[in-house]
Amino acid sequence: MNDMDKAKKLAGEEAVHYVKNEMKVGLGSGSTVYWMIRKLGELVQQGLDIEGIPSSNQTAQWAKDFGVPLTDFSKVAQLDITIDGADEVDRDFHLIKGGGGALFREKVIAMAAKELIIIVDKSKLVPHLGSYPLPVEVLPFGWEVTAKNIALLGAQPIIRKKDEQIFVSDNGNYILDCSFGEINDPKKLHKQLIQLVGVVETGLFVNMANTVIVSNGSEVEVITS
Amino acid sequence: MNDMDKAKKLAGEEAVHYVKNEMKVGLGSGSTVYWMIRKLGELVQQGLDIEGIPSSNQTAQWAKDFGVPLTDFSKVAQLDITIDGADEVDRDFHLIKGGGGALFREKVIAMAAKELIIIVDKSKLVPHLGSYPLPVEVLPFGWEVTAKNIALLGAQPIIRKKDEQIFVSDNGNYILDCSFGEINDPKKLHKQLIQLVGVVETGLFVNMANTVIVSNGSEVEVITS
Repeated sequence: MNDMDKAKKLAGEEAVHYVKNEMKVGLGSGSTVYWMIRKLGELVQQGLDIEGIPSSNQTAQWAKDFGVPLTDFSKVAQLDITIDGADEVDRDFHLIKGGGGALFREKVIAMAAKELIIIVDKSKLVPHLGSYPLPVEVLPFGWEVTAKNIALLGAQPIIRKKDEQIFVSDNGNYILDCSFGEINDPKKLHKQLIQLVGVVETGLFVNMANTVIVSNGSEVEVITS
Repeated sequence: MNDMDKAKKLAGEEAVHYVKNEMKVGLGSGSTVYWMIRKLGELVQQGLDIEGIPSSNQTAQWAKDFGVPLTDFSKVAQLDITIDGADEVDRDFHLIKGGGGALFREKVIAMAAKELIIIVDKSKLVPHLGSYPLPVEVLPFGWEVTAKNIALLGAQPIIRKKDEQIFVSDNGNYILDCSFGEINDPKKLHKQLIQLVGVVETGLFVNMANTVIVSNGSEVEVITS
């Protein structure tokens, strides 16, 4: 296991300490979340009584594999805590997410939670957002028009592909990866994007994270806002 | 044929006079648009050379039935004209649309067109928007949370059903019919709604229509902004 993988494992496993009995837990997506769910499954086996809402089909599968009980928003109105990764975290705890394509469901479980805990390896901490291209989920119909309108805001949208086919999100939509360069005002950019016809959601999570758990592979640091 | 159906037919057929040779035409949805497409098919048979982009699977089917050639946004960047119906039109030409569930694609073809022509029977002209519940398209995941957030803006969202099943749009999403009462500031309400996580698009079309063609079943009136 290389240092980055060790860091993901350490940060992910640290996060389960925030999960208490009877909590409803939003389960993020991605390789760092994998370690969190695995550890959570161990605690459930030891008697921890929780239910999770997954943010992707992959996460739902991991929860089943590791024995973490699942529920959904038809039964649960609010989550106590959501634990998720991020592609970039800045000093103000603004995030870029969506590298794995699950940004919409991740934002729903983040918004529905009283507390959002972000788990990352150290490489994800950045002084300013924007080195990582911003993922924007768009409806398939007319995505070419949507991409053109996003370009007018100063980005170069690239339609995400997988195995030479257009990547389709769990919601049946497309992802445009949009390089804006350094993002100085994430709140403003999100507002501009979300108002465009065809934009479902952006990967900008502004003022949502409460705690960031970061690891370099040997140590874990917990930063609270 | 009753007066309302006559009015729809008259308004729909009048609209084709705005379609000129070589135009790219956005084709709306609904029972008034049906008559427009039928008439357009006749003109195509007589030599009119146009291509349309349909806003619903139903409209695409009618276009095929009546011989109107279709294209899509991978080939066409801008439309010359879009012709569509509406559920309500106020004095400032703001619209409520989405009664048929096609509001997102209708908004895409409206935004992509140089000119938007609205065809309605007289009952659709109202002093203020809002007697008709506002259709809002939302993603299925977490729609219950989205509905709750919309309710905080002062509406009572009702999930649209068809044959006792939740209605699914052509985009795979749900529709919430939201009674806000009289809508005094449609631009502001649209902005508030579109920023909610889970909202794909609203049925408020603000400052988009250029011309409204209205009929009472015996006469046709053309109102331009």
